[in-house]
Amino acid sequence: MSDKKIPYKIYLEESEMPTAWYNLRADMKHKPAPLLDPITKKPMTAEALAPVFCDELIRQELDDTTPFFEIPEEIRSFYKMYRPSPLVRAYCLEEKLGTPAKIYYKFEGNNTSGSHKLNSAIAQAYYAKKQGLVGVTTETGAGQWGTALSMACSYFGLDCKVYMVKGSYELKPFRREVMRTYGASVTPSPSTETEVGRRILAEHPGTSGSLGCAISEAVETATKHEGYRYVLGSVLNQVMLHQSIIGLETKTALDKYGIHPDVIIGCAGGGSNLGGLIAPFMGEKIRGEADYRIIAVEPVACPTLTRGVFAYDYCDTGMVCPLAKMYTLGSHFMPAANHAGGLRYHGMSTSLSQLRADGLMEATSVSQTDVFAAAEEFARVEGILPAPESAHAIKVALDMAKECIVTGEEKTIVFGLTGTGYFDMMSYEKFHNGQMTDYIPTDEDLAAGFARLPSIDS
Amino acid sequence: MSDKKIPYKIYLEESEMPTAWYNLRADMKHKPAPLLDPITKKPMTAEALAPVFCDELIRQELDDTTPFFEIPEEIRSFYKMYRPSPLVRAYCLEEKLGTPAKIYYKFEGNNTSGSHKLNSAIAQAYYAKKQGLVGVTTETGAGQWGTALSMACSYFGLDCKVYMVKGSYELKPFRREVMRTYGASVTPSPSTETEVGRRILAEHPGTSGSLGCAISEAVETATKHEGYRYVLGSVLNQVMLHQSIIGLETKTALDKYGIHPDVIIGCAGGGSNLGGLIAPFMGEKIRGEADYRIIAVEPVACPTLTRGVFAYDYCDTGMVCPLAKMYTLGSHFMPAANHAGGLRYHGMSTSLSQLRADGLMEATSVSQTDVFAAAEEFARVEGILPAPESAHAIKVALDMAKECIVTGEEKTIVFGLTGTGYFDMMSYEKFHNGQMTDYIPTDEDLAAGFARLPSIDS
Repeated sequence: MSDKKIPYKIYLEESEMPTAWYNLRADMKHKPAPLLDPITKKPMTAEALAPVFCDELIRQELDDTTPFFEIPEEIRSFYKMYRPSPLVRAYCLEEKLGTPAKIYYKFEGNNTSGSHKLNSAIAQAYYAKKQGLVGVTTETGAGQWGTALSMACSYFGLDCKVYMVKGSYELKPFRREVMRTYGASVTPSPSTETEVGRRILAEHPGTSGSLGCAISEAVETATKHEGYRYVLGSVLNQVMLHQSIIGLETKTALDKYGIHPDVIIGCAGGGSNLGGLIAPFMGEKIRGEADYRIIAVEPVACPTLTRGVFAYDYCDTGMVCPLAKMYTLGSHFMPAANHAGGLRYHGMSTSLSQLRADGLMEATSVSQTDVFAAAEEFARVEGILPAPESAHAIKVALDMAKECIVTGEEKTIVFGLTGTGYFDMMSYEKFHNGQMTDYIPTDEDLAAGFARLPSIDS
Repeated sequence: MSDKKIPYKIYLEESEMPTAWYNLRADMKHKPAPLLDPITKKPMTAEALAPVFCDELIRQELDDTTPFFEIPEEIRSFYKMYRPSPLVRAYCLEEKLGTPAKIYYKFEGNNTSGSHKLNSAIAQAYYAKKQGLVGVTTETGAGQWGTALSMACSYFGLDCKVYMVKGSYELKPFRREVMRTYGASVTPSPSTETEVGRRILAEHPGTSGSLGCAISEAVETATKHEGYRYVLGSVLNQVMLHQSIIGLETKTALDKYGIHPDVIIGCAGGGSNLGGLIAPFMGEKIRGEADYRIIAVEPVACPTLTRGVFAYDYCDTGMVCPLAKMYTLGSHFMPAANHAGGLRYHGMSTSLSQLRADGLMEATSVSQTDVFAAAEEFARVEGILPAPESAHAIKVALDMAKECIVTGEEKTIVFGLTGTGYFDMMSYEKFHNGQMTDYIPTDEDLAAGFARLPSIDS
């Protein structure tokens, strides 16, 4: 049934690797709305962003007209250390399912950070170094971004200060040790190192922290220390730009074998992986050169695209960061604690939000018990233990491939497999022991979040 | 300085992948001595091994004349799921060190088992399935072999019973969960499931178990259950045969670019990875077609090749398994508990032992604090977090590359990077916190082990 001329794993030659990132915004007819200053509610300027972010990254953040940004030679060298990532033809899975569908996945987990996050971390570290900075600060929750940034900083000899949500710091000592192996300092947040940390600790002595708080600490540290800037692993346009390497490699690999995907599927948290994977395909779709179904998959526990509203909102819980126009559940929305499967962010990248609003991208949500079942089904056949986040895409791809058995359609399905689940075994254990439950926010839960949205004329 | 025509990562095409395993014994002038029955002290026959091992694996175990064994199509398909593994040119490391040496490493960690163990696990599971068996049993200490076997069994729909050393079972719950994800049953050893387990529990109620005890339980379960056999992840000839895929791919990749290695370095525990990596090179060396320095690296804490004796000894602590002629520290030797870096086996594959005795292979030992320092140095530049076992080879490769800075030699160094250290972060943490100490057995420690060697005329 399967066309064995296509190898199990398509690796590009070094000479075929992308030399420029693709800025999808340049092709978008409706540009994503600008970030607004949280005080003045006016569009953020480069000057206003300069104390927080690196100069070149601000330039990339604000540029929605330049279609390609050349990848500096140093970053291309680093990419060659762990890229190109394989585009895998899931022959084993197809055979096991007995589906006429052709399934491909772009696997970003073959590097020590365990995910696609390294693609942007190395770029951000490079520009920080080039600007002559001493170091960068960031926050991390589960730890994938913190790990990636630690690796990138160690490569360029930059100091790296990571504020790790205290609950996660205590539950995931191994993640912390990987970061320390790469020379990063890892501080449980809230900490006594910052004003905001001390204030929160005074108010909530026993708190296990939150991403919003860790962001605030990282931003404070960056702005108060000479030679430091703050960096972020998702949501921002610059991150989507760097992550376009995923989609560009995927497209080159597919084109090489004359494969036209019918559907492209990715999981969606803040949007970095999905935005990167779909970028060149979406570009073709917008320009009318090709058509693809493009599907964002999110957890039912945090249904930003499927049940959120498209409006200006704060990017952080602390409401100190700029406002972004995006699909959002409100900056105070938090999925219930029993949601172990990642993708907990209340908002979504402004570009992806705009594409969704324009009807160019579909969105669907899945429950976490279904996601872990799909993860296990996939692992047993394809030999890769997926991160729970990635398994959201797997779940939808599996469902579609199973439908093809019924309909007989030979659909070509491409999905993003963003990373590995080595550090998520506690969640797998819950699943194996039948202790995993699902959480679906009620309409009332959501209404409470929407009620706190800022009112902005957009 | 570096010749950029060679890519960072050499991936073979599927069409270049080996189609047969190479049996180094066929080319050895002094064959490894036969396994002996622990009771009769006569060479083990296929009949005597049949209740314990799969038939085809026994055939491979006992055959020291057939140079190549064709890899069955089903195994080749599975190999394509995660192989070829990359042969990496360590440009980043060379540049950082400023060495004129050219460094290559064969990286076996890009699969969920995290190591080379999968190469043999899939072969052993295949032959068990082909024989119509229901399942297999095995023991695991750190868990890499157990994970690999679980993956292989899940692929072929075989039951997999893993006896995991109790101390490890409790300290490494994540390893256990990965195995469960692949459908294996994982039992802490000693258990009440077997006679030997019950006996040991009665004698030592609070014991945290040992590999020797877990082996005994796995063997008992295999022989007492219809349709089960016992499988082993190292030491045996059959394992070395399957692992030759590592060396064959490495040699094909080097030949493709006209690279002649001066030195080949691998870590040595039971010998599976080292034996596999060096096989085709050693074959050339024995046949006088080429010369290479070949170096086995072991921990000072368990100095089998550097301070052991070459004699017949039991393969297991329980002294129920066959006797093998090998370098050994005595079947009761155990490295001190502070030795966290793996490679704890008292003996060594009979083939590698014979090669060492014949002066065809060098051996050296390194201390674990040096090993972890080398692991960290490597991780920060090459972006891969190595397993402590693999880092033994890294340590020696780094030392040699640094010597080349002084001597100006442009040595070509190839080493085996057998796996990743994601599940070893507790040891890394000890190292980061300055709590890691070294253990070097005294001559008296070793003499105690040698005193218990069986006396065999060989």
